[in-house]
Amino acid sequence: MSEFKNVTVVKNANVYFEGKVTSRTVLFADGSKKTLGVMLPGEYEFGTSVAEEMEVLAGKVEILLPGESEWKLFDGEGSFFVPANAKFKLKVHSVFDYCCSYLAG
Amino acid sequence: MSEFKNVTVVKNANVYFEGKVTSRTVLFADGSKKTLGVMLPGEYEFGTSVAEEMEVLAGKVEILLPGESEWKLFDGEGSFFVPANAKFKLKVHSVFDYCCSYLAG
Repeated sequence: MSEFKNVTVVKNANVYFEGKVTSRTVLFADGSKKTLGVMLPGEYEFGTSVAEEMEVLAGKVEILLPGESEWKLFDGEGSFFVPANAKFKLKVHSVFDYCCSYLAG
Repeated sequence: MSEFKNVTVVKNANVYFEGKVTSRTVLFADGSKKTLGVMLPGEYEFGTSVAEEMEVLAGKVEILLPGESEWKLFDGEGSFFVPANAKFKLKVHSVFDYCCSYLAG
């Protein structure tokens, strides 16, 4: 079972879309940050400030990356990058468990 | 902002009730375990194996503890204990952010 060791976890959840999207913030010794989150089925749009790597831990989800016209399907695995200051869309088909890494600017 | 430092976090979410209840497991250096979770509005019943302390971080929730006939209301704060090998019920009225501590038997 994959784990993050020697980290700091912020106790309170981050809550979006009336709780259909929630995450917890994990802080690493090197100053980097990730969030571990869950999205329930639905359609969402998010904006980035810094670049993000999204890793699919579980769930079936389609992603529309900025500047693209074709949705990409992920089924339980894989990852994708979103540039800084960009918007991306998701169609979540089954409970989407993810790890989002915030990439330093 | 309250944090847990020097902990291990299990990457994958624990998912119950089709994702309406999810949590992440946090492991402490002393061998103890907590989960940080979110419950969406709805009614739930859970069973314990070891005793649990549930801390309300956010949200409005009613709890029916084992052997009791009166529901207790929590609104954004407070905590309650559930004995080992018991069942308890929850009526979640708004996104319920919680911290569950598993108490060694």
